[in-house]
Amino acid sequence: MELPILVQLFLLFAAAKLAGEVFERLGQPAVIGELLVGMVLGAGVLGVVDVAEEPFLREFAELCVVILLFRVGLETRLSDIRAVGRTAALVAVVGVVIPFGLGYGYYVAIGRESITALFLGAALVATSVGVTARVLADLRLLGERESRIILGAAVIDDILGLIVLSIVAGGGGEGGIDLVQVGVTVALSTAFLVVFGLFGTRAVARGGHLFERPRLPNAPFALAALTCLGVAALAQVIGLAAIVGAFLAGMVMAETPDHYELEEKFEPLGEFLVPFFFVITGATVDPTQFFGGGTLVVVLVVVALAAVGKLVGCGLAAAGLGWRSAVIVGVGMVPRGEVGIIVANAGEKAGAVDAETFAVIVAMSILTTLIVPPVLKVLFADRLAGRRAGRGGSPVPAD
Amino acid sequence: MELPILVQLFLLFAAAKLAGEVFERLGQPAVIGELLVGMVLGAGVLGVVDVAEEPFLREFAELCVVILLFRVGLETRLSDIRAVGRTAALVAVVGVVIPFGLGYGYYVAIGRESITALFLGAALVATSVGVTARVLADLRLLGERESRIILGAAVIDDILGLIVLSIVAGGGGEGGIDLVQVGVTVALSTAFLVVFGLFGTRAVARGGHLFERPRLPNAPFALAALTCLGVAALAQVIGLAAIVGAFLAGMVMAETPDHYELEEKFEPLGEFLVPFFFVITGATVDPTQFFGGGTLVVVLVVVALAAVGKLVGCGLAAAGLGWRSAVIVGVGMVPRGEVGIIVANAGEKAGAVDAETFAVIVAMSILTTLIVPPVLKVLFADRLAGRRAGRGGSPVPAD
Repeated sequence: MELPILVQLFLLFAAAKLAGEVFERLGQPAVIGELLVGMVLGAGVLGVVDVAEEPFLREFAELCVVILLFRVGLETRLSDIRAVGRTAALVAVVGVVIPFGLGYGYYVAIGRESITALFLGAALVATSVGVTARVLADLRLLGERESRIILGAAVIDDILGLIVLSIVAGGGGEGGIDLVQVGVTVALSTAFLVVFGLFGTRAVARGGHLFERPRLPNAPFALAALTCLGVAALAQVIGLAAIVGAFLAGMVMAETPDHYELEEKFEPLGEFLVPFFFVITGATVDPTQFFGGGTLVVVLVVVALAAVGKLVGCGLAAAGLGWRSAVIVGVGMVPRGEVGIIVANAGEKAGAVDAETFAVIVAMSILTTLIVPPVLKVLFADRLAGRRAGRGGSPVPAD
Repeated sequence: MELPILVQLFLLFAAAKLAGEVFERLGQPAVIGELLVGMVLGAGVLGVVDVAEEPFLREFAELCVVILLFRVGLETRLSDIRAVGRTAALVAVVGVVIPFGLGYGYYVAIGRESITALFLGAALVATSVGVTARVLADLRLLGERESRIILGAAVIDDILGLIVLSIVAGGGGEGGIDLVQVGVTVALSTAFLVVFGLFGTRAVARGGHLFERPRLPNAPFALAALTCLGVAALAQVIGLAAIVGAFLAGMVMAETPDHYELEEKFEPLGEFLVPFFFVITGATVDPTQFFGGGTLVVVLVVVALAAVGKLVGCGLAAAGLGWRSAVIVGVGMVPRGEVGIIVANAGEKAGAVDAETFAVIVAMSILTTLIVPPVLKVLFADRLAGRRAGRGGSPVPAD
């Protein structure tokens, strides 16, 4: 059944909003409803939309999540991230080492080839911060200390993941690590971070008034959208996740003068586009594929290792914040998303990742995404209740 | 050269904004700049984007123009259209009959088969109001009497075009007109217009406050977006243009309470998405294909007939408004866009439209689109100057 794109978009949006409404009434984050209803519409269950057969939806979803992370960046000041920089870096490093070790160790222990085990480890490395960012934004918690640590760590962790991938993939082909390739990756991704994270924010803080110079109507908005697309595209071209670029672009634009009202203007754009990302992501999941065969056990073990690895690694690194905050940071770093799937693709091309491991990685990416929203909501429950009681439900983030 | 989608979107948006800026400074509508720069980026010239090879762009462009017409609908009250209803209906009918006759007559005169001539005539029938609406919106002229006549006539004219197509296509296959098929088309499209144009607007005028009932954040915005996608998709399913559905959906939503601020909320969505439609439309044009071969003469004659047909037909029907207004209405109805291409596709499937005629129809659709913005700008020059002088550049539409 191949429905016209507009019909598919209508059904996806209607399902997202209906599920969001139901989950709001249940007191759960709308994003869980969007993911689940997507799964129901997807090829595995009802087959109303088939993401594998409809490249439009995958590419559209990518644009939508770019807008989400740009909006999150808009709410994040460089000074916020710098204040938590040391902790965020530690969270990123430990949160990369432990999941990599667990994934590699498990696969070696069950007798898989070493190169396959390396790719599995690499696939467990990089957090995909989309789901966490959405939950934090919906609950208006982006201003919290833990949220800033998670966002900062996710950026660094994506760069570390890219470096790990370049080492593993370099070693996969010829048997030796291509030090030049690894060096180029390190240099490019570090330069990207420095140029946009540090120089970009400073340049805009000083020269942001120039955004009014063009004659175009709404020039600041147009230039912000251009920056969002440009930095996201550049991140993708050098091998980073597009959403990392979008987040940095948002942080850069957060330094523009307040009267540009970029947050207000990007809000409807996000309200319209972001639900598509989550419902399409849900639709890529075929829940039937997890039942039957020995793969289920491997999937469950890998998901458990993926979750525990970030929870323990990132949690330990953030232990100085107290146990509750450390757990929040650990849980917030659990979702993997598309980065793991990029690793799986690279491994498949290198002949190191077999079909079962590919399916395991895809399942891991999806399941780590699905489990996080309800847990985060519970962990923040005290603070949400306190805010409602103390401030009459003010949507201003507590600090 | 197959660039990643995000890179293509960045280049298209950057080119659109750069060209828009240049054309603003030249005192021309930004939309001409967007169309022309798209042509330069397209497969025919630079080949940076190849719309034929990238179905994402075509489908994305359709979503973008749906948002444009929804926004135009949001600025249009049913009472505005009713006030000009009789004139609009006359403009639509005469503007269908004359271009159809001219196209059919010319093709028969140069010795083409009668069935091919019927399809060419049918392809000249339906105005595609996207470009005109964009120019009128950019110049803040949507409130003008002529604008309302154009919008009203474009809706009716699309329905007439659909009926003509169902007659011609029915006759093309078996040699006889399928009266049942034609009857179904007439009934469906009339019902569509009545349900959304009349009942929908009244229902929302009375029950619009219910849009606040859902728990979803920004529920009125979400429901408006849902209506936009749903009515546009439905229009497409019954064979009308999606943009006609989007326009009617916007008119329905224009009846919601003012504090929903739907116009304000859909503005950034349009600012972001709409330029993509025009630059992608430009990129579908391969200017090189018009030079060389005998086709050029046929193209030029058909474009001239298409332009003169609407100008004279619609202008005569609107003659009661005075010659300047009649010319504005006539020019505003000239662009054909995607409806002509739908007819060409149907004719090709029926074996009635040969490759040359197909190319002629595509060229006609594009060229009638390109010539309109600068002419409309000149025709409205007096009023724009008067408004600047008299009201200090107020963006409120004159009435």
